[in-house]
Amino acid sequence: MSPIRVGLLGIGTVGSGTFNVLKRNQEEIRRRAGRGIEITMVADLDVARAQALVGDGVLVVDDARKVVASPDIDIVIELIGGYGIAKALVLEAIESGKHVVTANKALLAVHGTEIFAAAQRKGVMVAFEAAVAGGIPIIKALREGLSANSIQWIAGIINGTTNFILSEMRDKGLDFDVVLKEAQKLGYAEADPTFDIEGVDAAHKATLMSAIAFGIPVQFDKAYVEGITSLAAQDIRYAEQLGYRIKLLGITKRVAGGIELRVHPSLIPAKRLLANVEGAMNAVVVHGDAVGTTLYYGKGAGSEPTASAVIADLVDISRLHTADPEHRVPHLAFQPDEMSDLAIVPMSEIVTSYYLRLNVADEAGVLASVTGILAEAGISIDAVLQREADEVGGEGSTQTDLIILTHDCVEAKMNEAIAQMQALPTVLAPITRIRKEELA
Amino acid sequence: MSPIRVGLLGIGTVGSGTFNVLKRNQEEIRRRAGRGIEITMVADLDVARAQALVGDGVLVVDDARKVVASPDIDIVIELIGGYGIAKALVLEAIESGKHVVTANKALLAVHGTEIFAAAQRKGVMVAFEAAVAGGIPIIKALREGLSANSIQWIAGIINGTTNFILSEMRDKGLDFDVVLKEAQKLGYAEADPTFDIEGVDAAHKATLMSAIAFGIPVQFDKAYVEGITSLAAQDIRYAEQLGYRIKLLGITKRVAGGIELRVHPSLIPAKRLLANVEGAMNAVVVHGDAVGTTLYYGKGAGSEPTASAVIADLVDISRLHTADPEHRVPHLAFQPDEMSDLAIVPMSEIVTSYYLRLNVADEAGVLASVTGILAEAGISIDAVLQREADEVGGEGSTQTDLIILTHDCVEAKMNEAIAQMQALPTVLAPITRIRKEELA
Repeated sequence: MSPIRVGLLGIGTVGSGTFNVLKRNQEEIRRRAGRGIEITMVADLDVARAQALVGDGVLVVDDARKVVASPDIDIVIELIGGYGIAKALVLEAIESGKHVVTANKALLAVHGTEIFAAAQRKGVMVAFEAAVAGGIPIIKALREGLSANSIQWIAGIINGTTNFILSEMRDKGLDFDVVLKEAQKLGYAEADPTFDIEGVDAAHKATLMSAIAFGIPVQFDKAYVEGITSLAAQDIRYAEQLGYRIKLLGITKRVAGGIELRVHPSLIPAKRLLANVEGAMNAVVVHGDAVGTTLYYGKGAGSEPTASAVIADLVDISRLHTADPEHRVPHLAFQPDEMSDLAIVPMSEIVTSYYLRLNVADEAGVLASVTGILAEAGISIDAVLQREADEVGGEGSTQTDLIILTHDCVEAKMNEAIAQMQALPTVLAPITRIRKEELA
Repeated sequence: MSPIRVGLLGIGTVGSGTFNVLKRNQEEIRRRAGRGIEITMVADLDVARAQALVGDGVLVVDDARKVVASPDIDIVIELIGGYGIAKALVLEAIESGKHVVTANKALLAVHGTEIFAAAQRKGVMVAFEAAVAGGIPIIKALREGLSANSIQWIAGIINGTTNFILSEMRDKGLDFDVVLKEAQKLGYAEADPTFDIEGVDAAHKATLMSAIAFGIPVQFDKAYVEGITSLAAQDIRYAEQLGYRIKLLGITKRVAGGIELRVHPSLIPAKRLLANVEGAMNAVVVHGDAVGTTLYYGKGAGSEPTASAVIADLVDISRLHTADPEHRVPHLAFQPDEMSDLAIVPMSEIVTSYYLRLNVADEAGVLASVTGILAEAGISIDAVLQREADEVGGEGSTQTDLIILTHDCVEAKMNEAIAQMQALPTVLAPITRIRKEELA
């Protein structure tokens, strides 16, 4: 049988990884897929560099539209990124009846509904394993492996840059700014790291996982997004003393009022496997009603790990494209006419537990007034850690840190309680609030 | 579209879990699969009990052959277990053109070649996600999720009973026999635990994973199998002091001479995620050339976790059965005419590192003679831990424990060196040898 012909849009880090792995493992992949899979056409603005990478046997063009329109291409891989040109090219590829493989989480988290609907109409597949957690086959696990389950919640470390930064902050006791610079030097963070450190990248991925897990449309605009830029080394240290680690988690959860969808730093118990995912690695915990808790771990980025996911999608398409479109794996796990309209719960309505750090005057009655406010709000306390003033502010200091872990409460109540505590004259600095997930 | 009609052979723990989850999540599963999936016929020797479990709407028979032969059944789930009747029924189901889902690792590890060939001839699927690591979708990850990779090695905790026993031995410092009795009381070990504690169950699963990872036929008879019955509490303690934990691992590895396939207790670095998989949980580490190291974690047994895998297979079949048979996912990941004849390497030829515990006379020259033998054999030493005689044998003791960690060497050389050390008059008891895997 003749090989599947693939056109590649953009041959940067992931594109060249895809080309190299397809070439290196071509025999093994052909033996699995039952037919060859070959990149026969590449579009890149830098034609000379691209041609040098792929060799003479592959047609390189500078206009991606030529690939998308070519009658000699069966599948288009979109690795351009962003919303603009990438979106237009993906839609054109679909219109010309081509299957699409993409690693573009931003595009799908924002425009997925439009793109998947177009693919559905044309009877083609848009595969995106590489868009979430790089080489970890988490989309496949959620969409196929756990299809028996009513999924209850997902919590994932799905951004390697921030996990590297948090691991370094903990290991070396350094503050965020210092570690970010180191991460940029090492290539773990980009020159403009905003999307990573502000949680936007993780929120794109969490949005895709929430859609697949719960059968809801992608709704990035409803996600709560909080990054790690204001995390202080001392919070990581205090958390550690209380038996917790701080990770940037993407969380999506089925609750009475709908679906929670949120990205923020979270304390998690140090003994959980997820707490021990270090450096730039990714891991996703999925809890299903039948299977219980499962975890998926691996590299979340990088040339060949991401290529591994891109190529797995190519193999899947080469297998499934002969199945009638009604019976393929649906893009968002549920049949398009069987999606749910469960609402994303506003952040003020979510229920979780909290870590609070209050910089307070070292005088009698402070703890009583703070805990009085929490008691008034019906928020019960799990643990308190009061530091000696000397330890925090040096000898003779008149201020100290008061750390409180709470049990579960509604976020709105916590917001009110924090406002009241903040107004106390003995609370000397803005209160730090970090959410806490037991993941039990 | 009319529902897929499923016949269930054997309604014990997993069978009733499958029935219950299919019923509880029927709407969600139908929304995913695009059509209903219903158990319409059950075979069980205890008809009355089975009928009480499934209610009046389901036909219950005592003769499994009636299900296998029924024209009203599309997919047969085999949950009888064992080789005899189960094998005959699976083959009959295939002959009558039915797809089969089974959790029977023993059957497939031993008779898989015959069964998959029969399925291939008839154009039906034999799905077996539930046969390895229960609810963890590891077969799907290996066969589809990592299809881009040349898989290098797999190491898994794939037997919950033995992992529970080892976790308890470590936590409580107890010996094997004591913990086994406790595990039996708690239902974590069967009345006859032989298959679990002798490593046979893990070897069945490792055999299936090796076939899928490397495209070789199932070869359970070539697997090296060693259980945990001779592990002593002090070895777990010494390993801990050296920074390792002891786990029963199923290992399969691509090496120059072919494929390693072995199950035995192994020291692994305590900081690895795999070392922190506790209790009855399972986890599998897969290392691919492109993706690097990935890990999959979850419950490896139990009613609903296993049902989760059985039902995922039902959904897969309901999707894939419209694809032409040449393009479905091959049973063993590689197309049947593209299997490899790589040989399973004999145990004497494997290369690994070792933990040795020698009970020796507490006198001058012992360490020199022992290390001399290792040096002579070209085996280099990574670490030595010599206990004070008092600590080991009590005050005034004249014997002590000598623990040695080695670097990599060929098993045959280690066998020879152990025989020579054992012959020393100062070595007072049989030498304990446990293999060590760095999993780096």
